[in-house]
Amino acid sequence: MRIFIAQTRIKAAAPGANFKSIEAAVAQAGKESAELVVFPEMALPGYFIGDVWERPSFLKACEEFNQRIAALSGATPVIFGSVGIDPSKRNEDGRVRKFNAAFVAQNGRLLGNPALNMPFWPKTLMPNYREFDDSRHFYDLRKLALERGVPLEQLLSLVHLTLKSGQTLRIALGICEDAWSDDYSAHPYEILARAAQPDLIVNLSCSPYTAGKHVKRRKLFGKLSAAQNCPVVYVNGTGTQNVGKTIFTFDGDSGLYQSGKFYPVAPDFVSACKSIDTKNLPPAAETTPAGRTAELHTALESALSFIKEEWNLQKVVVGVSGGIDSAVSAVLHSRVYGPENVFCVNMPSQFNSALTVSAAENLARNLGCRYASVPIDTAVQLTLKQIQDVRTQGFPIPEPLPSLVQENIQARDRGARVLAGVASAMGAVFPCNANKSETTVGYSTLYGDHAGYLAPLADLWKQEIYAIANHYNTVVFGSPVIPQETINVVPSAELSAEQDVTQGKGDPLCYPYHDAIFRLWVEDWNRHSFESTLQAWDDGSLKELIGDNAARHMQQLFTSREQFAADLLRWWNAYSGMGTFKRMQAPPVLALTRRAFGFDHREAAGLPLSR
Amino acid sequence: MRIFIAQTRIKAAAPGANFKSIEAAVAQAGKESAELVVFPEMALPGYFIGDVWERPSFLKACEEFNQRIAALSGATPVIFGSVGIDPSKRNEDGRVRKFNAAFVAQNGRLLGNPALNMPFWPKTLMPNYREFDDSRHFYDLRKLALERGVPLEQLLSLVHLTLKSGQTLRIALGICEDAWSDDYSAHPYEILARAAQPDLIVNLSCSPYTAGKHVKRRKLFGKLSAAQNCPVVYVNGTGTQNVGKTIFTFDGDSGLYQSGKFYPVAPDFVSACKSIDTKNLPPAAETTPAGRTAELHTALESALSFIKEEWNLQKVVVGVSGGIDSAVSAVLHSRVYGPENVFCVNMPSQFNSALTVSAAENLARNLGCRYASVPIDTAVQLTLKQIQDVRTQGFPIPEPLPSLVQENIQARDRGARVLAGVASAMGAVFPCNANKSETTVGYSTLYGDHAGYLAPLADLWKQEIYAIANHYNTVVFGSPVIPQETINVVPSAELSAEQDVTQGKGDPLCYPYHDAIFRLWVEDWNRHSFESTLQAWDDGSLKELIGDNAARHMQQLFTSREQFAADLLRWWNAYSGMGTFKRMQAPPVLALTRRAFGFDHREAAGLPLSR
Repeated sequence: MRIFIAQTRIKAAAPGANFKSIEAAVAQAGKESAELVVFPEMALPGYFIGDVWERPSFLKACEEFNQRIAALSGATPVIFGSVGIDPSKRNEDGRVRKFNAAFVAQNGRLLGNPALNMPFWPKTLMPNYREFDDSRHFYDLRKLALERGVPLEQLLSLVHLTLKSGQTLRIALGICEDAWSDDYSAHPYEILARAAQPDLIVNLSCSPYTAGKHVKRRKLFGKLSAAQNCPVVYVNGTGTQNVGKTIFTFDGDSGLYQSGKFYPVAPDFVSACKSIDTKNLPPAAETTPAGRTAELHTALESALSFIKEEWNLQKVVVGVSGGIDSAVSAVLHSRVYGPENVFCVNMPSQFNSALTVSAAENLARNLGCRYASVPIDTAVQLTLKQIQDVRTQGFPIPEPLPSLVQENIQARDRGARVLAGVASAMGAVFPCNANKSETTVGYSTLYGDHAGYLAPLADLWKQEIYAIANHYNTVVFGSPVIPQETINVVPSAELSAEQDVTQGKGDPLCYPYHDAIFRLWVEDWNRHSFESTLQAWDDGSLKELIGDNAARHMQQLFTSREQFAADLLRWWNAYSGMGTFKRMQAPPVLALTRRAFGFDHREAAGLPLSR
Repeated sequence: MRIFIAQTRIKAAAPGANFKSIEAAVAQAGKESAELVVFPEMALPGYFIGDVWERPSFLKACEEFNQRIAALSGATPVIFGSVGIDPSKRNEDGRVRKFNAAFVAQNGRLLGNPALNMPFWPKTLMPNYREFDDSRHFYDLRKLALERGVPLEQLLSLVHLTLKSGQTLRIALGICEDAWSDDYSAHPYEILARAAQPDLIVNLSCSPYTAGKHVKRRKLFGKLSAAQNCPVVYVNGTGTQNVGKTIFTFDGDSGLYQSGKFYPVAPDFVSACKSIDTKNLPPAAETTPAGRTAELHTALESALSFIKEEWNLQKVVVGVSGGIDSAVSAVLHSRVYGPENVFCVNMPSQFNSALTVSAAENLARNLGCRYASVPIDTAVQLTLKQIQDVRTQGFPIPEPLPSLVQENIQARDRGARVLAGVASAMGAVFPCNANKSETTVGYSTLYGDHAGYLAPLADLWKQEIYAIANHYNTVVFGSPVIPQETINVVPSAELSAEQDVTQGKGDPLCYPYHDAIFRLWVEDWNRHSFESTLQAWDDGSLKELIGDNAARHMQQLFTSREQFAADLLRWWNAYSGMGTFKRMQAPPVLALTRRAFGFDHREAAGLPLSR
């Protein structure tokens, strides 16, 4: 059987644009004499579209396009994901009842689902963790079973198809989470297979990329194909969609699973539609995954390139300090936007060393990007003088101003005055170069270095930023495009004499140690807290939690429990106090690993331990 | 029967602090010889705490405090809301199973729920709309019924209590949404009453304030008490909790409902615990609600006062332009923080009129706040010159700079350079004075006038800001504390000669019309879109949708469908395009009406119609 797997690029809330991709794919499938065509989950409306689901006119448009897709179908069945409406019923929010559904079209019309008396097959399991918000918008089969007073089993049935050749096919049709049912009390594919042995398992997904998910996903569907002794068609889209503060990328990874092996249709992140002949399979996928840094590098560039296109961006101004984060950001933007569209701006003050300034200039030269120096001292002095004037008008202001106040004035001068001004004058955007470590504890200035159109690196720990920098120099470029000084210099904001890199002074964070601690708080599925981290120190389990390298640094940093606890409390309060306020106003984060800040890490602002 | 209704102030994720309030209330109830004590939903852990629910150490602390509350109880039963754990089971996210639950303590221990074999009564219905996120964290009774393969009815049972007096009591115990079941297929209180007539209905709530909710709430519980022929104890907390971008306030409104009438225990927003004797009732509540503006005024000041305390804020710097939004913001902050803690700063440029500058100064004088003028022209000229220098270094920058670019430079100079600098120097915060109208369409500058610690007015339409200003002058102050010039002047950003108020030039928005249009897009339960608004123009239904006043303005503004549609498209694209990016980085919004921006209006960034 030739199955056409349509790994389409899906645009959020753009049924018109998505219909065009679907139309082209159906035409291509016809040319390739495919016997079955399968599209991803929510291939028509897009998936992460926020409360656009609450617009009746949008739903109406989707319903019309669902019919137009049906009209495209001939004898070859077309399976696609879209929103299904039951106009006679309400959702629990009082709005019209919507389902995240799979549609099956053949001979110009949508097939009916006899178990439900509806023209679609709804998703059974609704993910409600991380960035997923399905049960906000969609009714699910379990609620329907409860409402109708019947067991769930009665509502789940195989799809019976007759192909062009006359062959009949029983499909176990599910959507994304339906296959990831380990933690649920219901297992849709098992229920489906219990009634009758399916000839084919189909899973429509809209499953965002995160580092390492490939491995898990391939294992899961490989296992499913082996356990049910049945081929599995897995179809996921590509592109970028966002949940406001967090931007996700879809890597595709579609293909056929048979007897535990995986036959992909396209490289990751590439929108491609292709037939797979179950009797003449292409080469199976390698089982050894790429290393984490190489994977992240591909993901970063693919994601940024989707975003650039999606938001119709042309030019970027990157503030380059000579430090590691802005260097990786400049390289990344130069790779995706082209060096001719990236303008590097260095904004020196009296506190910036010749070392980092020349590293910044060298980086721009190595990349082939234009470069300018825009000094900030004059403006900063003016601001300080104006604050002095306010003081002389009788306002209680400490004299001299605390260093932190002066540091923040410099950072805002760079971000909100210079970068925003220059970028706006050029019709360009400017990125926020913050990494995940500083984002965690708010080691950044609002409207300063935490400003920008996107924080592409804010889901990567400082240690990962270094790894990617080295990957660029050694693997991608084969030469030190990122100057060695940038990699060697102590990480520093260079905002005061206390942060003088030429004296080896820099950030108050020891990244190899603090990154590991912050991971416990942010990324562990069962998150650690100040209390549980301290408890782990006390009971001796902390070393194992943070790993050998971090533990070595920990031993060098602290000679007593008191020292350890004081440092821990400082950063815990920064994370759950000021850090939350800064994250509320931070730019959208590109999600790459797990628990990216934003919608994937819901937080109430201002809950430090000390309050 | 004397029922002690504990309308406590609840702090988010602060079980220690909340335990103290509970302890004090239980002691007070003892002194008042209460026979039953009732606390709100989630009185111990707090409710809007984001993913803090994912921390095992937090859950452990809550369980310990649950036991300590039990230990406080004697012969008088204590009912309280907290998190209930079933350590033997998993949630669907793989984490430990948690319930939003009501606990009943008596004689030093927690009573068992025989229907479930657990020491608590879980919430049945999980709200999943607006700001609510219950099903992300909590398992509900319906899922449990499905998992156990039993009808929901079997898991819902009355609580049987024996009071100190020996009297027995059958309580229909539910949590918040359980009473708001109109759109659900299950109605918990009806199921409970079907088994046996309850003696008392109890509803624990953690129900945030929104304008007009009182009326709905009192109607609903009044109806419940009449329909079930049974008194209803309704207990809601006070204080403020946030879901990150959106700050909610809890107004209490607790009391006893009997035969449709309501007997409140305290004024709105006041944390107060009080006994109500069902045989000797206090005066029933007035049935006529306060007018909307008066209600909003109380809510604004109450909410800000909770926030000030919660975040431990002392001083505020308010940028006052002489316009209406900053005037209301200054008045509000002066009322809550005290005039001695509010510093008004006017930041004139060449484009600011003497009219507005003197109105700003007069406002500060009328309020008794200190006032300073910090001009921005020098800094703006410096920025323009530095951009010119970048141009001469070969960067393609238009000459002269577009007006919008120059306007944004001024706005950022005010927000990020002056206000942030001055506030930081004083150890103060500064508010964002944006209203809902400009927030909707992003008529504001990021890092400029859209910066601040909080946007207290961003859930109020421009027309409502005027109403509140007039309310302050006429009802609250009885004198024009807000200068009449501020109320009369054309609304204007005063950022260019095209916005010269002395020539009657100002914002591109006609607020009486555009506010009404934006409401359709933002606040209607079934949201309107560009398409449906245009459709409403075409079929003649738009006038009814926007009301007479807006319709009159509409007729003056547009003489053709083409004009109307062009304006509509301009603002639609602003709302769903640039507006989304600005809102992502805007300060937290104080929620007052319905569909506040932020978590209550989930949106994907960058979805304009024109893309």
